[in-house]
Parts: sequence; C-alpha cells; structure tokens
Amino acid sequence: MNYYGSPVMRLIEEFARLPGVGTKSASRMAFYILNSPDEKANALAGAILDAKKSAQYCKHCYNLTDKEVCYICDSSRRDDTTVMVVESPQDMAAYEKTKEYSGLYHILHGAISPMNGISPANLRIKELLARLDSDSPITEIIIATNPNIEGEATAMYLSKLLKPLGVKITRIAHGVPVGGDLEHVDPITLLRALQHRREL
Amino acid sequence: MNYYGSPVMRLIEEFARLPGVGTKSASRMAFYILNSPDEKANALAGAILDAKKSAQYCKHCYNLTDKEVCYICDSSRRDDTTVMVVESPQDMAAYEKTKEYSGLYHILHGAISPMNGISPANLRIKELLARLDSDSPITEIIIATNPNIEGEATAMYLSKLLKPLGVKITRIAHGVPVGGDLEHVDPITLLRALQHRREL
Repeated sequence: MNYYGSPVMRLIEEFARLPGVGTKSASRMAFYILNSPDEKANALAGAILDAKKSAQYCKHCYNLTDKEVCYICDSSRRDDTTVMVVESPQDMAAYEKTKEYSGLYHILHGAISPMNGISPANLRIKELLARLDSDSPITEIIIATNPNIEGEATAMYLSKLLKPLGVKITRIAHGVPVGGDLEHVDPITLLRALQHRREL
Repeated sequence: MNYYGSPVMRLIEEFARLPGVGTKSASRMAFYILNSPDEKANALAGAILDAKKSAQYCKHCYNLTDKEVCYICDSSRRDDTTVMVVESPQDMAAYEKTKEYSGLYHILHGAISPMNGISPANLRIKELLARLDSDSPITEIIIATNPNIEGEATAMYLSKLLKPLGVKITRIAHGVPVGGDLEHVDPITLLRALQHRREL
C-alpha cells in the first residue's frame, strides 16, 4: 500500500534492500531522514554517490582507497617483507585495529567456494603472484583467510601454490574461533592468532 | 582510522547516523553499495533526495504524501464523519493494515511529553480543531494515541478540549492482545481488561 505517497514508499523500499534491514527499520530510517534538516539527507545521498564514484582498489594490495595506492602500501613505516593475505577489506581493518601488525596486506576479495561458483580465478590470486616476482622484498606470506571451510580451502590452495616460490608461508593460529568471521573477532584473539602463526 | 579512503569511511559514518545502525552494520551497508551496480547506488541516493524534496503533509490530516491531499482524504469511499487521531503516520499505516477502518485520520506528529519539551502547541492540535468548524460532517473522534504515559496524557487533554464542541469522543479499548498468553500480559493490562469486560 502507498500509505505515505510514492517518494516516501520508494525510500523505504530502497532502505529495505540494504543488508540486515527489514521494512520496520527501513521506515524508521526513512522517517529519520524526513525529519532531519536537508543537509543531513544531502550528506547521506552525497556520500553514497561519492563513495561509489571515487572508491577504487589499491594497485598493490587491492584494498579500497580513493587514491592509486592505499595508505598502508604508501607508508614508509610498514615492513614490506611481510604480506598478510585476507579475504576482505573489513578483515584488513580488523587486523589493523590490533595496532601490532606492521607488514603489508593483500586482499583476495573472497574465498574459494565451489558452492557459490567462486574459483581461484575470481580472486586476486594472480595479482598476489605478481607481487612475488624475482626482485620482490617479500619473505613471508601470512595467510589470514577466515577460519571456516572456504577460508581453509583457500589457505590450502595458496600454500600449495606459493611454497614452490621459496617464500615462507604461514597461517594464523587457531586461536580464532572456528566457524566465525574475522570481522567479528575481538582484537586480543586476533593478536594471539597472529603470534601463534605456523609454517605450512 | 581511514582504512578504506575518505569517501568510503564517510559513507560508513553517514549510514551509522541512521537510527538502529551501528558501525558494523554501517560498513556492511557501505560494502553492499560498493559491490552493487551503479544503478542501485543511484536509486538509493535518488530516493533520499526525492523523498526529502517532494514529501509534504496532507493539508487535511497531516499524513505524509507527495500531493496536496493524501490518498485517504482524497478518497470518496471513506466515511468522513469519523476521524481517528494517531501520533504518527506509522500508526495510521498500522490501522490501515486492519482493512476494517473506513473513516479518516488526523496525525498529531507526536504526543504531549513535558520531559521531552513537547507541549500541545508542538502537535497538530489546532489543525484538528479547525477540522471541527460549524459546517464539518465529523460526528466522532476516535483517540488512538499510544497506550503509554504520553499517549494517555494526550488522550486526556484532547478529550477535555473536544468534548465542549459537542462531538462524540472515544478511546480505543485497552485489553489483552489477541493471540497472546494471559501469563505474559502485564498486571495493569489484565486489570484494564477486567474493568472493561463486555457482556457476551
């Protein structure tokens, strides 16, 4: 039903498309916007368009950034001999919050999952291989894919692929709860998992 | 920290301002937008700006609409002798979903709440009085404000204000909710249900 007129109903529908948002939350959001000053609505709409327009992948690690190279790859204070491979930018952010890891990252943008039609070719794996060419300073690759079936399969795949290249391959320790998502793990557990990484 | 570049961080912040949205949900929403086709992002941004621009209050009942008069006040099939007074457009929509009420509405846009600095002057009460002028067809006002302290206070206030005008004033019944267990109903509601018992 078109209770509040088409534009408001359309706004509620659009909010309800967002992940984790039901119709009731969506209408709460819509009424919040309608009761806010114009600047707030413009700020949200502008942020959506802006992020969509300017967000791009770092040409080294495939983190999200608004520049060619992300702030981590661009920093001179990071240890460029170590690269941590993660599934998503959120997982990178989760490790950054420990404030202890000083190496670089590589974002795969997913994990191998035949059920969902995601094969190694859909991930940023050849871009990772390209970072390991002959004059690369990288001596260790830490595999920090999620501790679930897809993440473990991806870790196994990467370890088999990368070992012949003579670089040390490690896996974060199973201090992280099996079956969880890195994004939701507390920083201390993440830190333990980093400290106890094992050579594969 | 500026993990994903300013535009993405700003989008996460803007989503996190919405009611009921924390930082984690906000970043899930932001990544959903970033991973969607451009049209979806444009649709959401457009819906925000559109709703903000074109939503207005119905000049009779103060429901939200994109026209001068809302679809309910504009309908010839509604009974214009009865007006239900509710706190918000969402409450109107809740009663519309019953598909049984065929009268009109009046939206107060709030309830009297001295704690939150909301006095009768902040509500659409004088607009309700204006609907009750000498040549008005209205014979009954149903007060359907929320069954909480603010809603009851508003109901009392309206009943005192409107009774001298010679119109019938009613209040929606208090009682046990249909489909519930008596065991889980609070004592005050049980008492009301007993006091307002009807002969069968």
